[in-house]
Amino acid sequence: MNPPPITLLTDFGLRDSYVGVIKGVIAGIAPAVPVLDLTHQIPPQDILAARFNLATAYPYFPTGTVHVVVVDPGVGSHRRAIALQLDQGMLVGPDNGVFSGVLADHPLHTAVELTNPNYWRTAHPSSTFHGRDIFAPAAAHLAIGTPLAQLGRTIDPSTLVHTCLPAYAQDGTRLKGMVQYIDHFGNAVTTIPAHAVAAVEWSVAIGDRLIPSQSSYADSAIGTPLALIGSHGWVEVAINGGSAQSILHLNWRQEVDVIVHRSV
Amino acid sequence: MNPPPITLLTDFGLRDSYVGVIKGVIAGIAPAVPVLDLTHQIPPQDILAARFNLATAYPYFPTGTVHVVVVDPGVGSHRRAIALQLDQGMLVGPDNGVFSGVLADHPLHTAVELTNPNYWRTAHPSSTFHGRDIFAPAAAHLAIGTPLAQLGRTIDPSTLVHTCLPAYAQDGTRLKGMVQYIDHFGNAVTTIPAHAVAAVEWSVAIGDRLIPSQSSYADSAIGTPLALIGSHGWVEVAINGGSAQSILHLNWRQEVDVIVHRSV
Amino acid sequence: MNPPPITLLTDFGLRDSYVGVIKGVIAGIAPAVPVLDLTHQIPPQDILAARFNLATAYPYFPTGTVHVVVVDPGVGSHRRAIALQLDQGMLVGPDNGVFSGVLADHPLHTAVELTNPNYWRTAHPSSTFHGRDIFAPAAAHLAIGTPLAQLGRTIDPSTLVHTCLPAYAQDGTRLKGMVQYIDHFGNAVTTIPAHAVAAVEWSVAIGDRLIPSQSSYADSAIGTPLALIGSHGWVEVAINGGSAQSILHLNWRQEVDVIVHRSV
Repeated sequence: MNPPPITLLTDFGLRDSYVGVIKGVIAGIAPAVPVLDLTHQIPPQDILAARFNLATAYPYFPTGTVHVVVVDPGVGSHRRAIALQLDQGMLVGPDNGVFSGVLADHPLHTAVELTNPNYWRTAHPSSTFHGRDIFAPAAAHLAIGTPLAQLGRTIDPSTLVHTCLPAYAQDGTRLKGMVQYIDHFGNAVTTIPAHAVAAVEWSVAIGDRLIPSQSSYADSAIGTPLALIGSHGWVEVAINGGSAQSILHLNWRQEVDVIVHRSV
Repeated sequence: MNPPPITLLTDFGLRDSYVGVIKGVIAGIAPAVPVLDLTHQIPPQDILAARFNLATAYPYFPTGTVHVVVVDPGVGSHRRAIALQLDQGMLVGPDNGVFSGVLADHPLHTAVELTNPNYWRTAHPSSTFHGRDIFAPAAAHLAIGTPLAQLGRTIDPSTLVHTCLPAYAQDGTRLKGMVQYIDHFGNAVTTIPAHAVAAVEWSVAIGDRLIPSQSSYADSAIGTPLALIGSHGWVEVAINGGSAQSILHLNWRQEVDVIVHRSV
Repeated sequence: MNPPPITLLTDFGLRDSYVGVIKGVIAGIAPAVPVLDLTHQIPPQDILAARFNLATAYPYFPTGTVHVVVVDPGVGSHRRAIALQLDQGMLVGPDNGVFSGVLADHPLHTAVELTNPNYWRTAHPSSTFHGRDIFAPAAAHLAIGTPLAQLGRTIDPSTLVHTCLPAYAQDGTRLKGMVQYIDHFGNAVTTIPAHAVAAVEWSVAIGDRLIPSQSSYADSAIGTPLALIGSHGWVEVAINGGSAQSILHLNWRQEVDVIVHRSV
């Protein structure tokens, strides 16, 4: 019986050995648990980008996975260090909204503040690297079966910090949303979910452009903008064989509307 | 008995959680199988760069390794999703030529199109992310011993797409080739194989420069260009302590000739 | 009983499959041993950056870990390939000073030159990629219990190459040091250790600026420079929510002094 993995999502980059050190701490406590990287290239301290990447990855991991997020501008302040129990997995990191995306779609069972120093790496954690001294050991202990309640005091879920973008809004035949994420390929993911366009013919208005919807990248000619339902489950703006971000000059948080032409 | 690994080779970059999601899908099916990264920084949709990196890495992996390639400009179109059985390992990915380099050196036993939806992640795969929905589950099932033939219908190997650079050509004392790859250090790997220069004294002509051959980087003074047999088994142009790409202004696909001075 | 991991620290970057190939070679010899990345983004051939990252990561790994370093400007020359036995782990790589930082803090038991070709990948190693042909197989054999002495001839520890920055120096109320490392966040780590400022009130002088010391990033206003004890155990210069490197125009090796105001 193989244990489920621990995942790591940070803004540490890969130039330094910070991520390696976290894996070393985990290996000392839970040597049989595989550690998988979600990404370490969240823009420094960008809680919304961390939230997006965790929420869109979470459903694809097996039951029991422990997800650690270290995007933590408030490290060393009074922000809480937390661990959360959900149906399908556990979440460990700072209480700053990075888990809001997962929690919007998946019920929370128990929330704990990581106050028990027996499960820290040291009784005197660094004031700048809780990933190493608090979150990594907590995740490792959870992964080998330590009950969540032993890691600290139970907290009221309603007190958790939430960080969200505004939901899309319907205005006649327009669904008004925004760019919530731009990926490595320059594809812009909007805040308009797939279900909102499931039964309609639609296109996307962005700046003064109208972009037709397609089923896949390859349905457009090379270099031509298209809108489609991306793999994340959101309306996405892309260019077949190119970067929509560069060619269309797209920005994070830019307004993007879906125009509904007619119901199918 | 430890299972052999699955390797991943993509153009996804490491900024987003796409690679992590693939590992999550594999962990759900084959939790005991280690997943190793070849690289995720293939230039977007560059089939020749993917082909080179897979072909030069393949011989160093243990028998039974399953190599997954997701460099897939045709995702969602009619290009086939395939899995190939060779002596030493299995290959999973799009039928677009990314496997041509391995197949040039290693005999193919069986080719299958991944048409059986029982081995997809979902009966309705995303039209933009077959890595997650088709290739990752196929690789995971192969790694735990599912027979290749169950994954889909057998196809004729002669119908596979091939993508190749022209072979080098001999013209008197010149072996005429080109730059097939430039690595992170700025070393330029040519299309002229080691065996072509095994029994001769030689140098390299590139642009209007003549560059002497050496045995190792350290045989040249710091900052001096040299040609040598690189670790990939091809004639390579390098600069000790510097980037040949930057200093010699080298480009991918640029003509590079070996000048044969005399047989040894 | 799970085996301890092998770690990898190189300047190979992540664009090519070099790191993957090393993992393939290890998987062929030691399939049950997890391989963890410290970093592969050491600036090309920067021995001091490799030394820093290894020394600051080493203490966080479990006993028995085998650390492989491939930052190796002298590959193919007469520099020795070595393996070192310490209390807590083993070190494998070139004899060029990359291990000096660990050795400054941890006693060395045995040093061996990797002269036994039975533990190389091939009797004719590439003259440019000892990581693949000598270091990776040596590390894999050590990780599965091969005695160090079998890998080659014992060498005198006093003959090992050392590479170090000058230690900080006290001059009245000034502790004179320098920037030894700048991380992904733009935080500048100095050569002045935590213990030197443990019992004093202090600030940092850098260029013509005087920067106050704080306990954590969050103790300064956003955008304000601060000095603190970093997670590595050295005096560090940072900016809450920004890059000290960019905003203060900091450089590697730049002089940084601690000003002691009074003993606590």
